[in-house]
Amino acid sequence: MNKQVLLAERPIGLPSESTWIHQIAKIPSLSNGEILIKNQYISLDPAMRGWIRDGKSYIDPVDIGAIMRAGTVGEVIETNNHPKFKVGDFICGWGGVQQYTVTNGDGFHIIDPTKAALKSYLGIIGMPGMTAYFGILKVAELKEGDIVLVSGAAGAVGSLVGQIAKIKGCRVVGIAGGKAKCDYLINDLGFDAAIDYKNDNIYSGLKAHCPKGIDIFFDNVGGAILDGALTKLRMNARVVICGAISQYNTTTKLKGPSNYLSLLVNRASMKGMVVFDYKQYYPKAIADYMKWTKAGLIKSKEDTYEGIENFNKTFLRLFSGDKIGKLILKVND
Amino acid sequence: MNKQVLLAERPIGLPSESTWIHQIAKIPSLSNGEILIKNQYISLDPAMRGWIRDGKSYIDPVDIGAIMRAGTVGEVIETNNHPKFKVGDFICGWGGVQQYTVTNGDGFHIIDPTKAALKSYLGIIGMPGMTAYFGILKVAELKEGDIVLVSGAAGAVGSLVGQIAKIKGCRVVGIAGGKAKCDYLINDLGFDAAIDYKNDNIYSGLKAHCPKGIDIFFDNVGGAILDGALTKLRMNARVVICGAISQYNTTTKLKGPSNYLSLLVNRASMKGMVVFDYKQYYPKAIADYMKWTKAGLIKSKEDTYEGIENFNKTFLRLFSGDKIGKLILKVND
Repeated sequence: MNKQVLLAERPIGLPSESTWIHQIAKIPSLSNGEILIKNQYISLDPAMRGWIRDGKSYIDPVDIGAIMRAGTVGEVIETNNHPKFKVGDFICGWGGVQQYTVTNGDGFHIIDPTKAALKSYLGIIGMPGMTAYFGILKVAELKEGDIVLVSGAAGAVGSLVGQIAKIKGCRVVGIAGGKAKCDYLINDLGFDAAIDYKNDNIYSGLKAHCPKGIDIFFDNVGGAILDGALTKLRMNARVVICGAISQYNTTTKLKGPSNYLSLLVNRASMKGMVVFDYKQYYPKAIADYMKWTKAGLIKSKEDTYEGIENFNKTFLRLFSGDKIGKLILKVND
Repeated sequence: MNKQVLLAERPIGLPSESTWIHQIAKIPSLSNGEILIKNQYISLDPAMRGWIRDGKSYIDPVDIGAIMRAGTVGEVIETNNHPKFKVGDFICGWGGVQQYTVTNGDGFHIIDPTKAALKSYLGIIGMPGMTAYFGILKVAELKEGDIVLVSGAAGAVGSLVGQIAKIKGCRVVGIAGGKAKCDYLINDLGFDAAIDYKNDNIYSGLKAHCPKGIDIFFDNVGGAILDGALTKLRMNARVVICGAISQYNTTTKLKGPSNYLSLLVNRASMKGMVVFDYKQYYPKAIADYMKWTKAGLIKSKEDTYEGIENFNKTFLRLFSGDKIGKLILKVND
């Protein structure tokens, strides 16, 4: 039997239990060319909030009544003449929020649990890792000596962005919520400074830690933090719009960056990115992450919760900030 | 005697008569190396609203009690051993809002009234012309076949942006206020379509005239028009932030572009610009404008009012939209 989570309705504001249908389905027998995956870990990402919103985006929305889209890692436990995958393979792909996935394997790829922990295929060497890598190196065009500000800095993407910038010889300031996260950024990840937006004023924090302004702002958050960061741009600064988690559950009009004219004054740019555009370069990023990890130059952390029943309340940790690093849900042993 | 306009106070909202001090000053005798310019035309530009605002920008604000900064063209009528300028030279520079300027000549350059009309040195071959040229060709990275949307399209900058894009083989849609301006864009300047934001809904206008979206949005306006344009970005679109005239007189917090996440979805960029950065390339732009004008490929229009006493009410035409093309004040015969 397969526990699954389906989209019941498009939420207004924060998703709640009524956003989802929990159902237990019988696993169908496999057609020719199909496989059955036992999913172990499900990736919980801020982007998922976007996927349940109606309307045009970089990817089609999840349909009402469909299994909620999610990245997964799991093990192939049955195949019906699949040309590529065999029983015992660990594979990563879009398995969705369910314990078992029946698929023809499109969009899945084999991963090697002896080379890296299974979970890291959803984190540092998965989508968040790729987002951080190409976001800071390609989109932001990071240069040695840049002053880099990162929001959502203790998150899956932000924590890697900051560490890559440190490896490349930059000054890095992170914005995160709460003392524990800020301590983690400085003591564990080697950030130069951290601003605790939940307890400190963002403007005084920026004044204290970015007195010379910033060359790059890597934004996962939007809202008041983006507004604050814009006041600190140096000439030719680059703002990367990776996400806007503070705005994803708004029930009023999304708050635009009211200090955007700082782009004009400082000849700065604000650029959007979607990680899938860099797919062909993922192997290079993975190789770099492996090398940096081995050399002790970069750390990644997963925050893992258990039980598909807990999907909604675990998902909400993304928005309350009640997690550090990559958020993962374990759905099978 | 020299009629001058000085900044009395920093206005909240629209400037009014009390923003300015009108005074009549005696023209001082020239020190060694100085010249006396009889100003003929004064340039009125949206950027001037920014210059009387306090705070850090791309240029120092005009001090309270100082002569209002403005671009001017005029004739040298006296010199005291100036090494470069002689009586009878026509020169262009920062003469300020006054009938006569005494200066050592820094920042002024000789212009040739036989090559182009005096006024055009404040328009097509002056600052607005340079802004349009480098904004659309360099900052927006215009390519043949692009779909280009321009706001403030009947203004000094916007009208040239659109015409350059037409010369380069693009589809061009302008946004302007009122039927007269929209007719002017299509019938006189050769725009493909025009949206009258004062009488039509901006979203239906965009739907009708930009059904395939836009590759470039050249924005002089900000506010609701920027919000609307962002919903129409195509992949890798470029938004040039040249100005935000709808926001310059706001007495509440400036309205940021609430649809800015369209940058993310469409991997688009939003870039600021300041024309002074391109100073070394002005001669190329001027040569191109001369060539295009001679070939009948580009038109420019000045809207000229008279009398330094009318400075404030003429300046306000920029914000009411009650002018077409480059706004100029004639202050001497």
